[in-house]
This record gives sequence, C-alpha cells and structure tokens, in this order.
Amino acid sequence: MGTLPTVDDVARVAQVSRQTVSNVLNTPAIVKEATRSRVEAAISELGYRPHASARRLRTQKSSTIGVRMEAFKDGVSGAVLDRFLHALTEHADARDMRILLYTATSPEHEIEQLARLRDGADVDAIILTATFHNDPRIAWLTDNRMPFVTFGRPWGLNDMDDPSHLWVDVDGYAGVRDAARHLTAEGARRIGFIGWPSPSGTGDERRRGWTDGAGIAEADAADLSRATTDGVPQGQRAALELLSGDNPPDALLCASDSLALGASLAASALGRELPIIGYDNTPVAAAMGLSSIDQPLAEAAASALELLFGPSGSNVLPAEAFNEEPKHRLLAPRLVVRRSGHLAPDETPGT
Amino acid sequence: MGTLPTVDDVARVAQVSRQTVSNVLNTPAIVKEATRSRVEAAISELGYRPHASARRLRTQKSSTIGVRMEAFKDGVSGAVLDRFLHALTEHADARDMRILLYTATSPEHEIEQLARLRDGADVDAIILTATFHNDPRIAWLTDNRMPFVTFGRPWGLNDMDDPSHLWVDVDGYAGVRDAARHLTAEGARRIGFIGWPSPSGTGDERRRGWTDGAGIAEADAADLSRATTDGVPQGQRAALELLSGDNPPDALLCASDSLALGASLAASALGRELPIIGYDNTPVAAAMGLSSIDQPLAEAAASALELLFGPSGSNVLPAEAFNEEPKHRLLAPRLVVRRSGHLAPDETPGT
Repeated sequence: MGTLPTVDDVARVAQVSRQTVSNVLNTPAIVKEATRSRVEAAISELGYRPHASARRLRTQKSSTIGVRMEAFKDGVSGAVLDRFLHALTEHADARDMRILLYTATSPEHEIEQLARLRDGADVDAIILTATFHNDPRIAWLTDNRMPFVTFGRPWGLNDMDDPSHLWVDVDGYAGVRDAARHLTAEGARRIGFIGWPSPSGTGDERRRGWTDGAGIAEADAADLSRATTDGVPQGQRAALELLSGDNPPDALLCASDSLALGASLAASALGRELPIIGYDNTPVAAAMGLSSIDQPLAEAAASALELLFGPSGSNVLPAEAFNEEPKHRLLAPRLVVRRSGHLAPDETPGT
Repeated sequence: MGTLPTVDDVARVAQVSRQTVSNVLNTPAIVKEATRSRVEAAISELGYRPHASARRLRTQKSSTIGVRMEAFKDGVSGAVLDRFLHALTEHADARDMRILLYTATSPEHEIEQLARLRDGADVDAIILTATFHNDPRIAWLTDNRMPFVTFGRPWGLNDMDDPSHLWVDVDGYAGVRDAARHLTAEGARRIGFIGWPSPSGTGDERRRGWTDGAGIAEADAADLSRATTDGVPQGQRAALELLSGDNPPDALLCASDSLALGASLAASALGRELPIIGYDNTPVAAAMGLSSIDQPLAEAAASALELLFGPSGSNVLPAEAFNEEPKHRLLAPRLVVRRSGHLAPDETPGT
C-alpha cells in the first residue's frame, strides 16, 4: 500500500515539517492557525488518512478481540467451536470490532501467545475457549489483568454464582435432563447413556442430566451406560454392548453426535429401532436425521460480548458494572427431534 | 490494560518531556547521549514496551492478513472453508502473522469492508475466497492496489497462465477425472454423475472431469447425469431417478458429499450396492464410510501465503518477484477410497 499518501507527502505539500503535521493530528492546539489550515488543506487534497495504528496509539484501543483457533478436528463434533467463531465474528462486526485469530499447541504455548498479544496491545480482550479444571490460562489472564471472558464455566475454580471472572456456558445438564424427560414422555422405560470417562467437566454434567432426567439410581446406572472416548466406532461398540444385554435400553442418550451416529449404526446392524439422541446438533446429525441437543452458539457469542462490552459499543466494562449484574450466563440448549434415519417425511427412503 | 507503563510514565521517571521519549524511540540520533541513556534506563526499569501500534506506524506493516468469515452453512460441505481457515491461521502463525476476520453479506458489502481495512491500514494483504465470474471484489482490490491472492481461480477473467492477480485453486477437473478412471479400473462400465446446474465454475469443471475420465460422449451424458441444487435430499432424488432407469449406472460420481450421501441413502433404499464417490472428504463422508475427493486445504493455505510473502517472512513480494515464477498454483486433489457404509474393516456392523 505504498501508494497511499503519507505524513511526508502532507508535509511536502503544506511546506511544513513532519513534526508539524504530527502536531496538527495529535495536538492541534499548539499549532498556529494559519499553519494548521495549510496542513488541513493538504490532508484533504491528498486524501491522507491518519493511520489506524496512530489512532490506536492515541486511544489505547485496538477494537479487536483475540480468539484461539482450535486445531482442526476431523471428527463429527469439531464444528461446534467453528460455529461459535462464526457467530462471534458477526456479532463483533455489528460493534465495529474484529476478531484476531491465534493458534496454540498447549496451555503453556497459549500463555506465550497471550503475552505477545498483551505486549503488542493487539487486542482489547480475549475470549478463552475449552476451559478445564485449574486452567493455568485463567490464572495468567487474571494476574496480568487482561480483560477476558471464558466460553466454558470455571470448572472447580470458584463459586459459580460469584465467579472470579466472566464466563458464558451452555447448561449441558439441563439439556440432557430435558431430553431424558422427553423420551420418558414418549414412552421410554429404560433409557441408556453413552458418555465419556470421568472426570470430564462437560461429560459428568451430561451424565448427571441423564440420571436425574430419567430417574435412574446410581446402582442401576452401570448396567445402562458405557463410558468411552469420543468417536463413531466407539459409539457403535458401546451401543452393541448395551443393546446385546439381557435387559437392553429402549432409548439412548449420547454425549455427542459421533457417539449417537455410532449407536444408530449399531441399532441398524441389529435390526433394532429405538430413539437415539445426540449432542451438538452437528451437520452430520441433520444429514442423517438424528435427534440432537442444540447448543445456542449465536446466543453464547452475543453473551460473551455483552459481558465484556455491555449491550453495545466496544469499551471494556469496568468491574463496578457487575455490582448488580451477574458476571456469567448459563444458556439453555434446545432439543431438536428428528425421526432417526429419515430425512424428511416426504423424502424418506422406503425402509 | 491500563496497568502497562506508558510513555508518560517513562517521561516522568526520566524527567524529560513526552516528546523526548518519543524521539528516543523513533529518532534516537537527534537526542543527546546523556538524555538518551536516562530514557533508556527508565524504559528498562519500568518494563515499558513500545506499543505495537507505534511500531506499525513506523514500519507501515500490520503483519495481519484479512479473510472473510463466511456465513455459517448448516450443510455437509460448509466445513471446507473452515478447514482452509484453520490451516491458514497455523501457517500465518509460523510467519508471526495473524488472521483478522471480517464478515460481509454481499460482494458490495465486502468491498465496503475491504475499503475500511485499507483506510485503517489494518491488514497487509487480503485472501479472497469464493471467487466467481466477473468478481467485482477482484476489480476493486486491483484498482486500489491492495495486495491479495484469491482462493479460487479467476473464472473467465483472464489467461490462467498469465493471470492479472495471484491465485490458488484445487483442480476439481483432475480430481473427478482421476476418480472416474479409478472406477473404470475397478470394473465400472456405466459411470453416472450428479452435479449442479450450469453455469457453475467449480460444477462445470467437475462435470467435465466426469465425461473425460469416464469417456462419455456428450450425447450420452444426459441419460447418465442429473443437475440439482446441493443437498442430501436432492442427491437422493437424483440418484433414485438415475438408478430406477432402464439401463442404470453401475457407479456414481457426485459433485459434493451431500449429494453422495443422498445417493448412498437412495442406493440403500433400493437395495443396491454400487460405488459412490463424493467431493470434499467432509467429516460426514468419513463418519459414513463414503469415498470422497479430498482437497489439499493445508497446501492451499501454505501456497496462498507463499505467493504473497515468498517462502518465509511477512513482507509482500514485489511484482518483479513473478517475472520468472508462476503467479498461481493449481493443486491436485486426492481420492480417499472407503468401503461405502463400512467404518473400518474390523468395525463394520454385521450387514
């Protein structure tokens, strides 16, 4: 962009020094009026625009929010944070703010990246994703007084109702509990669950939603559930075990769409029809006609920005703003019911 | 970040004016050595870091690349540009550059956004995605001399071998042609095709790959192909028509994984087994065990940066750099063969 007019061009046309142009831009009061008029005429004639970096230097604001770009996951559920990022970019744009992406290979590497963003004053705030128990990134951001909000509650760190930092999360417990109640209302009597090994913040919440919603005593839970790493073949294997037992479940809740898709393939292979509900409402679930629990990611993105900057604008709110207001938002997910394996009532393959 | 030391703090500690601190940072030669030492000691003592915006103002470089964030598509294929963006962020990070996201609702709106990025000197270059015939964004970027590369060839605009701008693309023609040859080698005798209505830059390329690779005369092409908008039910309907004919195809190539998934559901519904190959190698294809043509998106991202900035670094290459070098990269996709409906040899449901 060497073709844009520079301060030097303005100085040449106005026949003043570079410093005088700078003074007109930054401290006009100290410049004689005749000189100021000549410089302003040159600025107008050349179409010179004060560099954004100069504006930022004065305002100490970048109007930019830093977000880590997750390593690409080839799995079914990888798209969740991408959807959050899409919504975040759109909501930030409405505030005339932009999203700056960075990458990190570990929490320690992320802290290095955050330090660089701080040193460069590249961002006004950070939105931290994929939080976990005793997250060192949260401690670092707090110690270094960088404004931030987490997408993910402060697992195990402090009182959720009076958190030490701003957070937004989706209530996975309520989502699975309500899905279990839906299945019960539809006639299910033995609801099974396929989830992840404990401890897992999100996984344990979803499992608790199942036992509470389906009214299952912990003593019976082992027979009706399996814990496995995430993935389609894993879900398939777990469902084959559950469905091949003596007293198999008549409905299945799964902690992810990958597990639910595997469970659905297992049910097909066994020639069984039973309701199966996944989690995340991914494109795969939509394409395969699987019911799933949908996270309100657009609302999560809007809420993260509201906690940082208020209902509009791009100035970080002071701590006092939260004396009366909660410092977090726990959003309710929504069950999307589909007829498993059916695309749409009028377009189902003749099974 | 009001806790970071400022120029004013340095000035106070060194007992000089703000302007003198600025001179030490920007034009040290004009500052007396004793004063300079005192300012440097204060900078060191306070841990003051020259603001990135100040550095950028001096270097006229943002070390930032602008990319449009696409509106989120709930379809199966929506993840392709997300995968490109992931790879781009990682490759940019290796050059100490960052990605700035913006949104746009139309090409005209995008031009407004590009003008803002230019006015703010927010980015050093643009990576333009989803190019189309007579793309007004390309004309605008060229007229305004913003460095840019397109992901997508300059459809219909100019000579591909001597393009008016830098571009990277994936050779969809070669991908589908080679997939057709693979099917022929595997014994297919009547290869069908489900694609999109013409004119479509990418769609027409993929269809041409089918006729050339499968050796199909244009006179026979109508019987063996269908053109439809993208989507699973659309692919299902098109495949039902093709497979219900008198002389049905014994293999199917599809312009997308959505169409291929629909075709695969149609084949199941008719109790037919035939090879079906999609395009984009999406997570859905992987989860469903569908063969698909994989775009080398990491290579595309790396190539876009190489065309803009050379093999390393973050300085935009001058036009002369391309006197000997091609100004574009056309990358070959790769066929990923899976046994349709089978997850893995040892984990297949007992069909």
